[in-house]
Amino acid sequence: MSNTFKKISAIAYEGPKSKNPLAFKHYNPDEIVAGKTMRDHLRFAVVYWHTFRGTGSDPFGAGTMQRPWDDGSNSVKNAQNRVRVAFEFIEKLGAPYYAWHDRDVAPEGRTLAESNKNFDAVAKVLKEEQKRTGIKLLWGTANLFSNPRFVHGASTSCNVDVFAYAAAQVKKAMEVTHELGGEGYTFWGGREGYMTLLNTDMKREQQHLAKLLHLAVAYKKQIGFKGQFYIEPKPKEPTKHQYDSDAAACLNFLREHGLLPHFKLNIETNHATLAGHTMQHELEVAGAAGALGSIDANTGDELLGWDTDQFPTSIYLTTYTMLSVLKYGGFKTGGVNFDAKVRRESFEPVDLFYAHIGGMDAFARGLKIAAAIRKDGRLAEFVKQRYASWDSSLGSKIESGKATMKELEAYMLKKGEVTPNTSGRQEFLENLINEFI
Amino acid sequence: MSNTFKKISAIAYEGPKSKNPLAFKHYNPDEIVAGKTMRDHLRFAVVYWHTFRGTGSDPFGAGTMQRPWDDGSNSVKNAQNRVRVAFEFIEKLGAPYYAWHDRDVAPEGRTLAESNKNFDAVAKVLKEEQKRTGIKLLWGTANLFSNPRFVHGASTSCNVDVFAYAAAQVKKAMEVTHELGGEGYTFWGGREGYMTLLNTDMKREQQHLAKLLHLAVAYKKQIGFKGQFYIEPKPKEPTKHQYDSDAAACLNFLREHGLLPHFKLNIETNHATLAGHTMQHELEVAGAAGALGSIDANTGDELLGWDTDQFPTSIYLTTYTMLSVLKYGGFKTGGVNFDAKVRRESFEPVDLFYAHIGGMDAFARGLKIAAAIRKDGRLAEFVKQRYASWDSSLGSKIESGKATMKELEAYMLKKGEVTPNTSGRQEFLENLINEFI
Amino acid sequence: MSNTFKKISAIAYEGPKSKNPLAFKHYNPDEIVAGKTMRDHLRFAVVYWHTFRGTGSDPFGAGTMQRPWDDGSNSVKNAQNRVRVAFEFIEKLGAPYYAWHDRDVAPEGRTLAESNKNFDAVAKVLKEEQKRTGIKLLWGTANLFSNPRFVHGASTSCNVDVFAYAAAQVKKAMEVTHELGGEGYTFWGGREGYMTLLNTDMKREQQHLAKLLHLAVAYKKQIGFKGQFYIEPKPKEPTKHQYDSDAAACLNFLREHGLLPHFKLNIETNHATLAGHTMQHELEVAGAAGALGSIDANTGDELLGWDTDQFPTSIYLTTYTMLSVLKYGGFKTGGVNFDAKVRRESFEPVDLFYAHIGGMDAFARGLKIAAAIRKDGRLAEFVKQRYASWDSSLGSKIESGKATMKELEAYMLKKGEVTPNTSGRQEFLENLINEFI
Amino acid sequence: MSNTFKKISAIAYEGPKSKNPLAFKHYNPDEIVAGKTMRDHLRFAVVYWHTFRGTGSDPFGAGTMQRPWDDGSNSVKNAQNRVRVAFEFIEKLGAPYYAWHDRDVAPEGRTLAESNKNFDAVAKVLKEEQKRTGIKLLWGTANLFSNPRFVHGASTSCNVDVFAYAAAQVKKAMEVTHELGGEGYTFWGGREGYMTLLNTDMKREQQHLAKLLHLAVAYKKQIGFKGQFYIEPKPKEPTKHQYDSDAAACLNFLREHGLLPHFKLNIETNHATLAGHTMQHELEVAGAAGALGSIDANTGDELLGWDTDQFPTSIYLTTYTMLSVLKYGGFKTGGVNFDAKVRRESFEPVDLFYAHIGGMDAFARGLKIAAAIRKDGRLAEFVKQRYASWDSSLGSKIESGKATMKELEAYMLKKGEVTPNTSGRQEFLENLINEFI
Repeated sequence: MSNTFKKISAIAYEGPKSKNPLAFKHYNPDEIVAGKTMRDHLRFAVVYWHTFRGTGSDPFGAGTMQRPWDDGSNSVKNAQNRVRVAFEFIEKLGAPYYAWHDRDVAPEGRTLAESNKNFDAVAKVLKEEQKRTGIKLLWGTANLFSNPRFVHGASTSCNVDVFAYAAAQVKKAMEVTHELGGEGYTFWGGREGYMTLLNTDMKREQQHLAKLLHLAVAYKKQIGFKGQFYIEPKPKEPTKHQYDSDAAACLNFLREHGLLPHFKLNIETNHATLAGHTMQHELEVAGAAGALGSIDANTGDELLGWDTDQFPTSIYLTTYTMLSVLKYGGFKTGGVNFDAKVRRESFEPVDLFYAHIGGMDAFARGLKIAAAIRKDGRLAEFVKQRYASWDSSLGSKIESGKATMKELEAYMLKKGEVTPNTSGRQEFLENLINEFI
Repeated sequence: MSNTFKKISAIAYEGPKSKNPLAFKHYNPDEIVAGKTMRDHLRFAVVYWHTFRGTGSDPFGAGTMQRPWDDGSNSVKNAQNRVRVAFEFIEKLGAPYYAWHDRDVAPEGRTLAESNKNFDAVAKVLKEEQKRTGIKLLWGTANLFSNPRFVHGASTSCNVDVFAYAAAQVKKAMEVTHELGGEGYTFWGGREGYMTLLNTDMKREQQHLAKLLHLAVAYKKQIGFKGQFYIEPKPKEPTKHQYDSDAAACLNFLREHGLLPHFKLNIETNHATLAGHTMQHELEVAGAAGALGSIDANTGDELLGWDTDQFPTSIYLTTYTMLSVLKYGGFKTGGVNFDAKVRRESFEPVDLFYAHIGGMDAFARGLKIAAAIRKDGRLAEFVKQRYASWDSSLGSKIESGKATMKELEAYMLKKGEVTPNTSGRQEFLENLINEFI
Repeated sequence: MSNTFKKISAIAYEGPKSKNPLAFKHYNPDEIVAGKTMRDHLRFAVVYWHTFRGTGSDPFGAGTMQRPWDDGSNSVKNAQNRVRVAFEFIEKLGAPYYAWHDRDVAPEGRTLAESNKNFDAVAKVLKEEQKRTGIKLLWGTANLFSNPRFVHGASTSCNVDVFAYAAAQVKKAMEVTHELGGEGYTFWGGREGYMTLLNTDMKREQQHLAKLLHLAVAYKKQIGFKGQFYIEPKPKEPTKHQYDSDAAACLNFLREHGLLPHFKLNIETNHATLAGHTMQHELEVAGAAGALGSIDANTGDELLGWDTDQFPTSIYLTTYTMLSVLKYGGFKTGGVNFDAKVRRESFEPVDLFYAHIGGMDAFARGLKIAAAIRKDGRLAEFVKQRYASWDSSLGSKIESGKATMKELEAYMLKKGEVTPNTSGRQEFLENLINEFI
Repeated sequence: MSNTFKKISAIAYEGPKSKNPLAFKHYNPDEIVAGKTMRDHLRFAVVYWHTFRGTGSDPFGAGTMQRPWDDGSNSVKNAQNRVRVAFEFIEKLGAPYYAWHDRDVAPEGRTLAESNKNFDAVAKVLKEEQKRTGIKLLWGTANLFSNPRFVHGASTSCNVDVFAYAAAQVKKAMEVTHELGGEGYTFWGGREGYMTLLNTDMKREQQHLAKLLHLAVAYKKQIGFKGQFYIEPKPKEPTKHQYDSDAAACLNFLREHGLLPHFKLNIETNHATLAGHTMQHELEVAGAAGALGSIDANTGDELLGWDTDQFPTSIYLTTYTMLSVLKYGGFKTGGVNFDAKVRRESFEPVDLFYAHIGGMDAFARGLKIAAAIRKDGRLAEFVKQRYASWDSSLGSKIESGKATMKELEAYMLKKGEVTPNTSGRQEFLENLINEFI
């Protein structure tokens, strides 16, 4: 068991709404907001990879993280011990969910069989801890990008064996997710993309990716797994171009290959901004297509060009995110998954508390503000009124597909010029949002 | 008639392959490359808007262009005279095509009726000049973004009248395109997007955009216009987000609304790079979907964040572009459309010659190099061999959808690890390309 | 006189702290914050160019702004009338300052002499209105970029006549600034940069720029003008590279040419982000060099690559800005100058109120939050403690230049490894800021 | 000794101008270009870190590189063996120089003393191999960023001990560089910058950086090292902001702290583009200040936001680079240092040959083209003529500082308007460059 967290707990950590410097100020899980408890709305998840396996290494230097509970070995025993520490941490935070890749909870073995065996041995402890604490698995996923075998991609590798390996790994990860009662399963195409078009048959690679997803859909049915499948857009990094580049590209791919009914999107802030979009844009694209599933709650630095995966603290970001989430009916299977890492310079264990509490509090404020804006109603009413002319008979005729070009021309030739436009009022609306911040 | 061009012609301009400082060095229209004449491959088009209506104004200053043939008035007569000058220029260049927006060839009137009348009066001269010179219309399009009425978009405006106006304008532009024997018609969504999500119903706006395109498809059939419809992706500018943001987003939209059979894409270099993609990427996305129609041949400055629309002179750019174009069977209805403008500082008429000759020569070199690379065969063979393992029985089984996850797992459990990967050889391939530059 | 503003005033505008939808909620000019009134801290200025001359045109379309008081002519009379309207607006807002370029207050004539005459005629009305209202001139400047004569730059033009013209124009603008009691004079190098290095002698051009500034320093002394000179960094747009690219580049230039004692920097948010820096970074670079003079208060969109010049509404931006401003002693000659424009879609006069009130309120909140953070003291204390080891005898020896490499090596060879580092606590500090938002 | 390279050599590698697929096509070291041999112009250097220590790991996956000569241990013996392999490789390539960081040639020990001892043991072999082959050290440098002790920077760390450690490490690296006859010594500020301004005293940190450089200047004199000191600009990564952000920022820092006489700049392509500048821009800024020292020859991907450190293959890049280098008199102490790494997917040893040969050939072409452009003379003459008006008496008066504002105003009032400008001819000049490609 973790001495560190006991000590942190003793000196600093307390529950929601405490005055302790480490404690929540805005997140009260049982508070009722917009008709549900905050806990039911926000469905926070702690990610295993960054929080328990992140070392702080970067391309220019070695790891820095102080994790006194970890013996640094690649043993199953160390992995099992780490699980106990992880659940102690998540419990202290009060987060209801967590998420993993297969290879961050259990060590990779020398063979696939050994890897599977290791995974089972750790999954047993995960199950015990889930039971002991009530913490649930938001989603599982397979790491199909870290091992050198995936150097040219996984399902999109030029090497058919790598596809087979990836399929086997996804199968196992789905089984463990199912066994642990996971509420979803996510596909992030780590190296599914290209480094240079010079050596790439893009069309064939994308067809292979679709094949893997079809295999997963079939296997899901076979084993009776009811969780939601997610695809997670990202435009680049590690590859020059990731096939799932943004929400629209993912939807195009899913439509082309008949997969749209089986998948929703898991939208990540930092991936959105790397694609040149706001988080809200990606949420709206997904939501408008009925495919908004879950979010990876982090933030990037828009002046840096790589995935910084910082903890989200901007109240504007959390407000706009929750406005879109509430608009599309709130989270059902998905949640607010902190795919975020403490800075390399924040290497002490206590920084994990600061980071998560800050993120949870920022989302709590975002939820309350978004709920207040919706209750106030002026914003929604403004948008509705803006399109009022489309609710006329002419608008209805066009929307229902009954108008013709000839009629529209005749209408306009007669009228000569359009009814004057009115201001878009962007500044007014930005001020309106600020009223609630 | 244009005295300026006569003078330029007298002192400087000569035909292909001349030693004159203004002349072509690499573009010989009748030269046979890859089985067709260069003329048949490259199908160059001069754009009316930048070349004959560009003033050189920018957000920080007034126009600079010296266009002695233009009296500066908004009269139909000036517009007609400008047409004669334009054809003189295009003729001298030896470009076989041109392209226009309705409002750059003819002045907008006080009413739609007057605008249509003006358009007809100028179209008459366009027809005469086309006949006189043999120069053809690559495509026409309607300007649905410059007039203040389109401040909130055209088909995606919150004002239903604006939709009607846009439909009427598209109808007329399609009719004139048809009358002039245009080989295509392009939709570039000038302000079809949003400035702020705060005031926008994105889903409803996109449905309206789809309605306009369906109206155009129906009207095209009605009038018997056989030209190709194009959509042109661009991610931003003038709006914060343009709905047709990149090739994948356009394909997603066309698929969602049942429009894919009716449209191909017109890919522009500068729009590709603003979206964070290479030109070649966008060509491959379009090509793989069977939707590569035409190109807007220009270049941006990747270190600047706006549409600089420069003339293309990079031999790498033209080589990669022509490699993709040849790969997908060459241009059929489309062509190499110079949607490019001389710099604000290049304000003398002779700069129009330098710019176009430079672009045409650069494409001529790109074509020859791409053809040589294809003839050499090493590049294509490398890519083919790279996927050789997929031509095995295992590969075929997966590709034909007959494999199952269970089988693939069994195969890999038995094998233990994948057959070693081989290097992607990016540096070798880049050197290979350089052999041909 | 302006009927429009009267009407707006009658229906909507009220003073600070009103409940009116157009009114201030956070800006109370007379409130004491950090030892001075808000008015004394914030020194708001309305810019003449965007607010009274902005048309809403962009590279893709015509102007949209409804400005009923403006007859659209280029007459001196229209210009004078516009001044009256402008002062009515500024008065209603309660802003204490304004700023202009010579050419936005008065029309350019056919000759320099005529331009100067026009300028004098309008300056007379400016003076009357300043006297009538008590509104003061924060700074003046000359527009050396809009007229086509400046196509290749002003002082950095390849044409020596253009330098002479620029010098004459600066001379006159300085005189009028002096006459109107302006508290400063700003140099923004509109086209002082290059479009392509191919045609540019960068070193010679920068020497010419230095010459112009030396002439201005000499003339300032000659006429007894005591206002502060400012240079305003911007990295690009309209040129590919502006010589005053960021704060560090400006300081380097000023040091190289012996100009640093005579200039401070005017830092603009949108220019900072176009240069890849945060506003706070640029403020700190300027402040650390003793050269923080004034700010252009606006914001860009970090996902767009051009100068959007939006009104600032982010409380984080205003908080960080005011933290740096307070740290360096507050504004002395400078102020919060709204170099910002209403969106092209916000074309009604009332939007000017929404925009300015929103910006002023956002800065009022930023000031209060920054003052509270400083009063709280934890942030400053954290930074101080972080460097505590430098206050040791070893640290002092190094800082005073008395240590040698040999000694330092000996010290470390003996010690073997450094005293452990402590966490940078970024997440904790971000949470700390959020406590005050 | 390396069997691998022997094998590569046997099957594939041959000297310059061979027809072998691995061989040079354009680089003939003894060819006379612009008055010197290509060898004397280009002064190629192989970097030890990427080429012999790069593993291919990235933030998303483990190393991939096959380096059969390396036993993977951290032993001095392995390090010494690696040196022999490295020199075999560099010899085969025919590159005259190499470069290192202290920690990539020799393993870090448990104490500074042990690290120094290891370094000496490896330096002995470096010296032997230099003697055996004639290959020389272009520059040495100390790695002050990879070890966790440098988490908050080296000389700019908040921890004074880290400064002392850095000073000791620089001292030793300078000594070894001196011992090996190194022609220079480079300072790249790996983590000399900040991650967040919230915890940073930027001014104090920069003063500490200046102190370290002053210590190095003093120690250089003390030991009689005559090599050139370089500073290498980079704007970000690993930190959010690196203090040496671009050439102008470095020059500003050097001027402020009286260090300019002692340093030149080492300009890297990928760092230039990350700063938003072209390589040529940075070369011109350095050259104009008399501070162009050496180059790190690589390339980035302008559509990606991190340091990709690719081998340079664009002929445009090498041409523009060599144009600037020749303009400022060619390399003296510096050279063409391949700070570039093979792609993670190019993991076979032979890829090291492809990569370096491609880069050397590309620079050979760039040199020849640049020399031809200079010999042709039209480009330089165009630039000279463009500023001809400045060679008038008015121009000379302004340049010599004898003109006054009053005189210039009088001149322009009399003249009324400027002598017309002429076109900047960017398109013509781009075509001119293409003539030589």
